[in-house]
Parts: sequence; C-alpha cells; structure tokens
Amino acid sequence: MVKRYLELRSLDEALTLLTTSFTTPRRTERVPLMQSVGRVVAEPVFAKYSVPEVNISAMDGIAVRSRDTIGAGDRVPVTLDHFARVNTGNIVPPEFDAVIMIEDTWEAGGKFQIRKAATTWQHVRPAGEDVKENKLVLPRRHIIRAFDIGALATYGIADIEVLAVRVGIIPTGSELVPLGIRPGPGQVVESNTIMAQVFLSQMGAHCTRLPIVQDDPDLIREALRLAVKENDLVIISAGSSAGTRDFTEGVIRSIGELIFHGVAVRPGKPVMLGKVEGTPVLGLPGYPLAAQTALREFAVPLLESWGFPPAPRFPVKVRLGQALVSDPGFDEFVPIFVGRIRSTLYGIPHGKGAGVQMAMVKANGYTHIPAPVEGYEAGTELEAFLTTDPGSIERTLIFTGSVDPALEELAGLAHDKGLYIHATNPGNAGGLLALRDNTCHAAPLSLPAQSLVSSYQPLIRNVPPGDVVFVHIATIEQGIASRDGMGPGDLTRVRFINTRKGSPARDILDALLAAEGIDPSQVNGYLQEVHGPPAVAFAIRNGFADAGMCTSSVARASGLRFVPVAHEDYELAIRREMLEDSRIRTLVSLIQSPGYCAVLAKTGGYDVSLTGTIRGLNGENTLTPCSPGSLPAGYF
Amino acid sequence: MVKRYLELRSLDEALTLLTTSFTTPRRTERVPLMQSVGRVVAEPVFAKYSVPEVNISAMDGIAVRSRDTIGAGDRVPVTLDHFARVNTGNIVPPEFDAVIMIEDTWEAGGKFQIRKAATTWQHVRPAGEDVKENKLVLPRRHIIRAFDIGALATYGIADIEVLAVRVGIIPTGSELVPLGIRPGPGQVVESNTIMAQVFLSQMGAHCTRLPIVQDDPDLIREALRLAVKENDLVIISAGSSAGTRDFTEGVIRSIGELIFHGVAVRPGKPVMLGKVEGTPVLGLPGYPLAAQTALREFAVPLLESWGFPPAPRFPVKVRLGQALVSDPGFDEFVPIFVGRIRSTLYGIPHGKGAGVQMAMVKANGYTHIPAPVEGYEAGTELEAFLTTDPGSIERTLIFTGSVDPALEELAGLAHDKGLYIHATNPGNAGGLLALRDNTCHAAPLSLPAQSLVSSYQPLIRNVPPGDVVFVHIATIEQGIASRDGMGPGDLTRVRFINTRKGSPARDILDALLAAEGIDPSQVNGYLQEVHGPPAVAFAIRNGFADAGMCTSSVARASGLRFVPVAHEDYELAIRREMLEDSRIRTLVSLIQSPGYCAVLAKTGGYDVSLTGTIRGLNGENTLTPCSPGSLPAGYF
Repeated sequence: MVKRYLELRSLDEALTLLTTSFTTPRRTERVPLMQSVGRVVAEPVFAKYSVPEVNISAMDGIAVRSRDTIGAGDRVPVTLDHFARVNTGNIVPPEFDAVIMIEDTWEAGGKFQIRKAATTWQHVRPAGEDVKENKLVLPRRHIIRAFDIGALATYGIADIEVLAVRVGIIPTGSELVPLGIRPGPGQVVESNTIMAQVFLSQMGAHCTRLPIVQDDPDLIREALRLAVKENDLVIISAGSSAGTRDFTEGVIRSIGELIFHGVAVRPGKPVMLGKVEGTPVLGLPGYPLAAQTALREFAVPLLESWGFPPAPRFPVKVRLGQALVSDPGFDEFVPIFVGRIRSTLYGIPHGKGAGVQMAMVKANGYTHIPAPVEGYEAGTELEAFLTTDPGSIERTLIFTGSVDPALEELAGLAHDKGLYIHATNPGNAGGLLALRDNTCHAAPLSLPAQSLVSSYQPLIRNVPPGDVVFVHIATIEQGIASRDGMGPGDLTRVRFINTRKGSPARDILDALLAAEGIDPSQVNGYLQEVHGPPAVAFAIRNGFADAGMCTSSVARASGLRFVPVAHEDYELAIRREMLEDSRIRTLVSLIQSPGYCAVLAKTGGYDVSLTGTIRGLNGENTLTPCSPGSLPAGYF
Repeated sequence: MVKRYLELRSLDEALTLLTTSFTTPRRTERVPLMQSVGRVVAEPVFAKYSVPEVNISAMDGIAVRSRDTIGAGDRVPVTLDHFARVNTGNIVPPEFDAVIMIEDTWEAGGKFQIRKAATTWQHVRPAGEDVKENKLVLPRRHIIRAFDIGALATYGIADIEVLAVRVGIIPTGSELVPLGIRPGPGQVVESNTIMAQVFLSQMGAHCTRLPIVQDDPDLIREALRLAVKENDLVIISAGSSAGTRDFTEGVIRSIGELIFHGVAVRPGKPVMLGKVEGTPVLGLPGYPLAAQTALREFAVPLLESWGFPPAPRFPVKVRLGQALVSDPGFDEFVPIFVGRIRSTLYGIPHGKGAGVQMAMVKANGYTHIPAPVEGYEAGTELEAFLTTDPGSIERTLIFTGSVDPALEELAGLAHDKGLYIHATNPGNAGGLLALRDNTCHAAPLSLPAQSLVSSYQPLIRNVPPGDVVFVHIATIEQGIASRDGMGPGDLTRVRFINTRKGSPARDILDALLAAEGIDPSQVNGYLQEVHGPPAVAFAIRNGFADAGMCTSSVARASGLRFVPVAHEDYELAIRREMLEDSRIRTLVSLIQSPGYCAVLAKTGGYDVSLTGTIRGLNGENTLTPCSPGSLPAGYF
C-alpha cells in the first residue's frame, strides 16, 4: 500500500505538542561529586558546615593583639613579645584579633618588629566567611560546573542528587549491520542510534541502545513495548517514511497514540511522535542529517523542558557568502561554514542533501531558515549556530572556486598548523565572483594554460587589475578518463559525460572537438553536464557513462584509465591585501614547502616544477612572476 | 626564614615562558568511536569504503529505465512493465537509471502508471556520493563532535587515534583532609585537586590524583620525582606562597629548574612553574579562586598549545553595573554576573576575595582586567566570559539592594521556574541608585516602617515619582542580637558591632540611642561598622563582639538570642515598566504564592500578613496599595 503523509505539522505546532503531551519524569540519582560535572541539581545542596569553621589567618604572618600595635610607625617601630606565627589558613588563636603580613615584619631574636599599627581583624577570615553551615550552595536546576565542584568539596559535599533520564533507542531496518561489520551492497552501518546515544549522553541521559530490529512490525512492537516500560523516552530509528517497510507509525498506533507524523522541516520531514503507556516515542527519519535535525530540534527541547541542559550553542551573526534558496512552508536547517574575512563573519551554505553526512562534518555551524522565508540573497545578514569552538572561526579560511584533490592535501597540512580550510566548489566563475565580492580568503582556479585570455578575461576583469596574485599550486593534466583507455578518436561512439559550461574541462573538450572537426551533436551525452572532475569520474566508475574529460589525478584516484589532452594551471588566486594576513602567509609557505610538493608528487598527476611561484597578471592578462619587492615581507 | 617573591612576572611574560619551555608530548591513544566525543584527532581519519558503495535509491518509489518514460504527461500517462520497487537506500539494479517517487505513481494490477517522464539518474544516489573510499574524513586536530560520530560509524570507523595527555596532581598540606572526612578546626577538605582533576578531565586529560602529601620537603620531592616520570604535566597544589611551610619552590629547585614563581595576576599571584626532567610542573596557589585562575590561565593554555581544546568560552560585551577597582600592574580576574536589562547586557562584579568560592559559584561569568587598567567606571563596556550556557542569561534577574534570607528563599522558588536571581548587597542606597540607573531588574529594600519619609526621601527622589512600585515581601523584626539575650539597656556595657550609615539597622540604632538618651561615644564599638545583619551575626557568633542590631531571622539562623526593637518593611522595588516583563510577572506571582508565605513562616521572624501586596508611593511618600487598573494585566 502506498502511504502519504496525511497532515504535515508546522515546526511550532509540533514543538507545542511535544512539550505539552507528557508529564516530566521524576527520575533522579545520587552521583559522587567527581562525576557530577554537567549534571543538573535535583535537590538543593546545602553546606555541611561553615567555611572556615573558626577564625583563620588570611595571610602568612603573625597573629597579634591589635591593641599591642598601637603607635607603631616608620620612625617608631614596635617590638611584639606576644604573637603567634601563622600561615594562611591557620587558626587565629582566640586571644589575637589581627594578623600582620610577614612581609611587614622584621624578625630578630625570636621577636617581631613592626612599623605600622594593625587594625582590628585585619587579615583574619571570620568563621563562615565563605559559607555558613546549612546555607544553600546550589539551587535546584543548577548545572554543575568544574569550579562548583571545588566549592562543594570544600563544603563537605561528597555526592549530589541530580536529574536522571533513561532513553531507550531502537534501531530498525533489515538493511542495517552493526558497527564493526563491513556492509555488503545495499547495506549500511547502523550509525544513527550511535549518534543519538552520544548526542543525548552529552545532555546527561542514560541511553540504552537495543540490538537492531528487522523490518517486522511484530518484532518492532515487541521491542517498543519493553522499551517504554524501562525508559522515560524511546527513540525509534528509521521506519518513519512512506516506504513499504516503514512500520513505525502502524506499530505506535497499535499499542498507543500517534501524536504527529510528518513535520514541515527539512531535513527531517518524516519525524514522528507517539505516546505509548504515557512514554514519548520519537521516530527518527533514516537519513543521517534528517535524524540529526530530529534529535536537535525535537529530542533536545523535550529533555530541556524536563530540566536537562542542551549542549552549548554559539549564535553568531553572519553575512551570507552566497544565495540560499529555501522551500517556503518548510523550516530548513542548512549546514554552513563560518569564517571571518576582514571584520565580517561570512557564512557559506554547505549543501542540503540529507544523506551527505560529510556536509555536516565539514561545516562548523548551521542556520535555521524559518518556514515563511523563500530564501536569502547573498550578503543577507542572518543568525548561524556554531558547532565548533568560536575561537576556531578565527582560524578558518574560506576557499571558493574549483576544488581539486591537491587542495585537500593542502588542507591536511594546514590543519596541522591550526588552520581550517573550508572549500566550496562553484567553479572558476564562482571563485572569481567571490574574490570580487570579498567573500572568500582565496579562490582556487583551474586555468587551462592557453585559454586564460580568451576564456577568463571577462571574469578576471571583475577584479581590479593588479589587485590579485596567483600562487601556483601545480600544473595538472586534463584528458579523457574511461574504464578502458578511450582517446579523442572514440568520442563519437561512446556514452560521454560532460562538465558545465565555463569549466576548464569543458573548454578543453570544446577546443578538442573544434580541432578534430566533430560537431557536439555527434557526441552522445554532450548535454549531460555534471560538476567537476570528481563527478565525471564517479559517473564513469559507476557505469552511467563510458568516458569524460577529467584530471589525471582524479582519474587515477578513481581507478580509471587516462589519455592526456591538455595542461592547466591550478592556481590559488588571492587579493593582494590579503597577503598581509598571517594565516595566508602560513598557507603560502605551506604551498612552497618541499613537504607539499612531495605529497603531490606521491599522489601523481601533478607537475610541481612551478609550485609556490607567485605571479600576477601583466598587461596582456597572462601570468608573470611577481618581483620580490611587490609583495609583503615574508613571501620570498 | 622569611621568603619574598624575588621577581613578579607579567602575565604575558609568564605565558610566553609557559608555552615555549617544553616540547609537546607525543602521547596518543586509540579509543572506541563512542568514547571519542570531545577528543582531538591525532592521526587523519579516512573512509574505509565508499558510501554508498553502489548506486542506491534516494527515495521510496520505483526504479525505471528513463527511456521507458519518455513522452509521459498529465494527459498521456505511461504504464511501466519493467521496473523494480525500491525503498530509500535500496540498490538500484544496474539495468535502471532513474527512480520515480512513489507519490508520483499510480499502481494498478501490479503495474505502475506515471504522468511525467523521468530524467536520467533522478533520485539515484551514485556510489561515493557521501564519501569515497580512502577519502579524508577528519583531519588531524579536529575536535570530534557527536554528529561526526554518526558519519564515522557510517564510514566504517570503529575506533580513532586521539591525543592523550597524562596529568599528575599532587595535593600538599598538613592541614588537609580528604573529601568525606569532616575537617577539624584549622583543617580543610582537600578540594583544589578535585577541582583540577574535573576541570582538566573536561579537556580530555587523564588525571591521576595522588594521596595528600604532608608539608615535608622530602615527601614532596619524592612524590614529584615519581610524578614527572609518569606524566606529561605535574600539578602541585599549594605550598607556593611565602609561608614557613611553602616548600614547593625549594623542592623544584632541588631536582629541576624553577622557571617562574609569582605572576602579577589576581587572584593567583603565587603561581609557580618549574621543569623537572623535561616535564612542566605547575604550582597552584592554595586559595581556591587563585587555584582556579592558575588552572584556567596557565594549565589551559599549556594544554591548548599541545592541541587540546579548551572548555568553550562565551565572550559577551557587558556594561558594568557598578564601578570596578583594580590594582594597576596586575592582571585581575573578577567573578561577575551577567543579566539582560531591556536590550543591554549588564555585568555586576561579584567580590574579589580569593578564599570565597561562593563568589564563583554564584557568578555566571568573569572578566579580565588587563594589568595597565586601574579600574572601570560604572557603565563602562567591557568583555566578560560566561561560565554558563548563554541561554541562561536571558533567565537571569539582577537584584541590587539589601539582601535578606527571605530573598534566598525566593531565589530557590524562582530557580524551580527556570529563573536565576543574582542578588548583590550594596544596601538600600545602592539599590535605589541601581533602580534609577536601570542597572537592576528589582531592588530589594529594607524600609524601617516609620522612617521612610525622613531617611529615604532623598534617595527615592532619584527615581521619577510614580515610576516605582513596591512588592511587599515581608515585615521583618529588627532588634538586638547577642549570645546571652542583651537588650537596649545593655548597650553601654558591651562590645557592640555596628552597621553602616544609611542601613536600616543603623537608623534604628541611632533612633534608639536618641530615645534612650545615650551618646554614641558611650557605645564601645559604635565606630566598628560591618555590612548588614549577617555580618553582625557572624561577628557576635565568632566572639568579635557581644551584641549588635540584626534581623530576627538572621539572629535565629545564627543561633543568637534576639530582643526586638522595631519593624521594617522588606520590599521589592520595581520600575513600573518592568512589570510588563514576563519574568517579573512570574516572580511577583511567586511572592504572592501561599508556598512562599509558608516557607517564610517556617523560617521564622517574618510577618507575612501583607506579603505580595503591591504598593506605590503617594504624595506624602508613604506606601499605598496600587489599584488593580494601574498595573499591567496579570498582577491581580
């Protein structure tokens, strides 16, 4: 039977249902003080005794009777017979009412001379100064921090009653294998419940992950029936879409109540909420990014409403580095990466495919586009939430342009220096626009050696002349990739896969066809465009096409054969003023390092004889090496 | 022998020495994926296989040959004989090159009808779309997040090599007892190393805390000698001041090198750094807040320089709610609490006593005053670092004025509603100034019943007439507290402890002396002023004085006897416009709740017959109940 979502709730509606349909569990537990960090105080904590319990010295020095010191001055030193030597924290004996710092005394023959009178109680810490017996130290709902624990220990508190919650997590799906087993074709590692367990444990939840349940409604029902008895929240992973084996909704309906199924949120639309024996049952979608959204936007608010602290969120205002389209009517959550270019924080959206977990791994934040919004223009200021330490933003470099594996190797080296390179791949044109608009730190460009003037002049003209330098990364071979070694002569008799207009591979193909006198209409697949060499290689490797234009390194990495056709310069285009930035300086020195050349040589397909050369555009719009004097110090 | 600090380093100098005197330890360890959250990647992590490994369906639907669908349209449905039913994630068999969503099909007799042609590869996820085999997933130094773990599991990664560091922590001090044993007089619980262990464990350090070492240089040396062999960093707690039993410096010198002892930082001046067999040895001061500073400002940067992530810091710009004095030449770290009053974040400094751990427990942040600064005026904008979730700031209410235990009970109830009350105690005058300057949400005031006009008119005049309402908390008895039941007649023959001018207790005392015809000079201790009833009670309880003016509840809580003299109204003064704030509404409803009255009645010393009454000042500057219509909805 084909199922459709009967009713798509708005995110707001769904959240209201979520936080009002259940009673707060009253589970608490007693934990040893040292394990209490991050936990939530369930019962107010009171000091066991006063600290200090008696009057003690606040300084290293001597305890004295202040009346014995009256009259002491620079010219009238007073020698004290009656005193007690005290260190910080020592009891001040009852007969004394002041402490004189050791630095303000002169010792001679077992007696101390002073040159300043002591005021009553000076440097004496009265009993109870820090805390008084039975005084409230931590109220209910306080989230315990490391430094609180020092105070609690001082006040004699060895264990604490904290909020506890038990979460049962049920993975379902016949295609799943547990972590540690290599999935066969059509199988995947059961990873969403691992992620859920780690994520919810950070909030202080005790998670129990059940063994994988096959796609069988009776087995799922049995697992759910047990889980709701033992847990305060049950999470069922997957089985919530509209496929033939999505049984979660039916199972919930059969032993409880379905509260909603389907929320106007992306990713995460199939999220589901039920109630079985009073216990909330949250159905996670199967796509990893959808499951993340469901965890973050549904499980977290539910636990928060029960008093549990969310993982810290760092909201920042960012300027969008490129336009962001959104489906009106849907609340969308988009991975984003954030970096600072001069004084402005820029956010670059990073793909919305729910299945592409790498998008979220690479991103350092996300943004929430509210349901009414259709999208944002580039340059719009909006709020993003960082998923990394805010300090790391200052070490993040945004690269926009043509991404080649050579860049990944560079990113790996840069990471060792504490620099995070975030690269997006809108191609040369996108890179030049970003360079013009100052929305990137650098633009990696693939420049076919002979076509710079003809093809790129219009784009490069966008950037003020002389304002950009080009750091040569490598010379890259472009050619024809195939499974069985096809060359230019085979183009009219195979299924070809093309790249987008304006890309280096496309320009080379078009030049090649012109040179060979082949009309594009003769090439089967000429109109089938994909995005960059890696996509070409995938298409061939996966049997969607027989041949395509690709770089030799990508073809090699994909196990394809390669027939060279032309060379291109892979360049990092950087605005001249950006050269003053110490991070860019580090980056250029990495490109110029022998280690980087060695890595590229090992990868293969790169000519590194010019790697690290810094060039500028001359009057003829061709690249000529910069003179040492024209660059900031440290570049030669 | 009396020791003095030979040389006080600047914080900058000390940090440079700290981060340049040691080589980075190369310790790593392999941890199971599920335990890797928050850890730092030591070796780059690569995907074990491509995900997906083969072409799979991105939707629930049917896999088709796109060429079979050509020509399908709304009016020309096409029925497909050759297809495969696929759910999301299923393999797309090699003969098919597109998937049609189940929602776009009509099933009849085991066949599917469609009304729109399929484009090649639509809804097909090509092999390697998420990640390709051997592709870099996490670079070195990446800090692993919960959602990364889902991706890593998907890519077949079951364990990860992460950075590790071993920290040995040595508590020293003959006055110390371990947590769990009640300290006798002059003893304290050994809490600083507990705090250090919890704090550094949060950064991913493996901490080993040694048993307490007595103040004996040979024992300390032996412990240190062993600790440097087994650890990458050794922390010695206490013994770093200039007292007679501060042996740490000597011990370090005897088996290694002293790098610095004494840094111009407050709290934390006695912090010490040494090097023994190449291992850094950090000497923590004994005062808890000084130890915290040393951990946060020295241990953290050292571990950070080794690649470990610090606990997240939340920098915010705050406006100082009151002036803050600082010692020029010292970098000072001051506990602060931060709350939002209308659109402005205010920071209220919260005491600088290094021994008062409660200051840091109560604060939700701290600020760093650089060495050259002598202090800041109230209203200065400066940077503070939050030590709580930034979201909690919006739930923080700042109270400034006269603090009475009745307020703590209120804070306890408010905490259960998710509101954090941070109260400072500069007295009535301070409260009224804060009210005038809008630097508090509410001002708790102790108003002696008969002296409102005479004493407080000048202060209340600061605030526009009619602009403030008074929520009655309780009527409180003021009287004479003592250990043995002294009354007004005893004032001239005991050691008295006074309160500051302008405080309610002082006004009552002065009125009493005038009425009894006693000259203040006849009262021994009249010039000895402390701050508020709790300080009076402590002084008496600790034997510094025999009697003082105090509230009955405080006297009672301190186990003192009490002779009543006068009544005062304990009021929460709130600007009228603030009544619109939902948090204030919640607060007032708490004051008006029977539960609050019951708590006050149980505490004793409070007359609650008017509790919750909302009053305003009339023309004669006396309090008269507000009419229901004069307040926003929800207050009656």
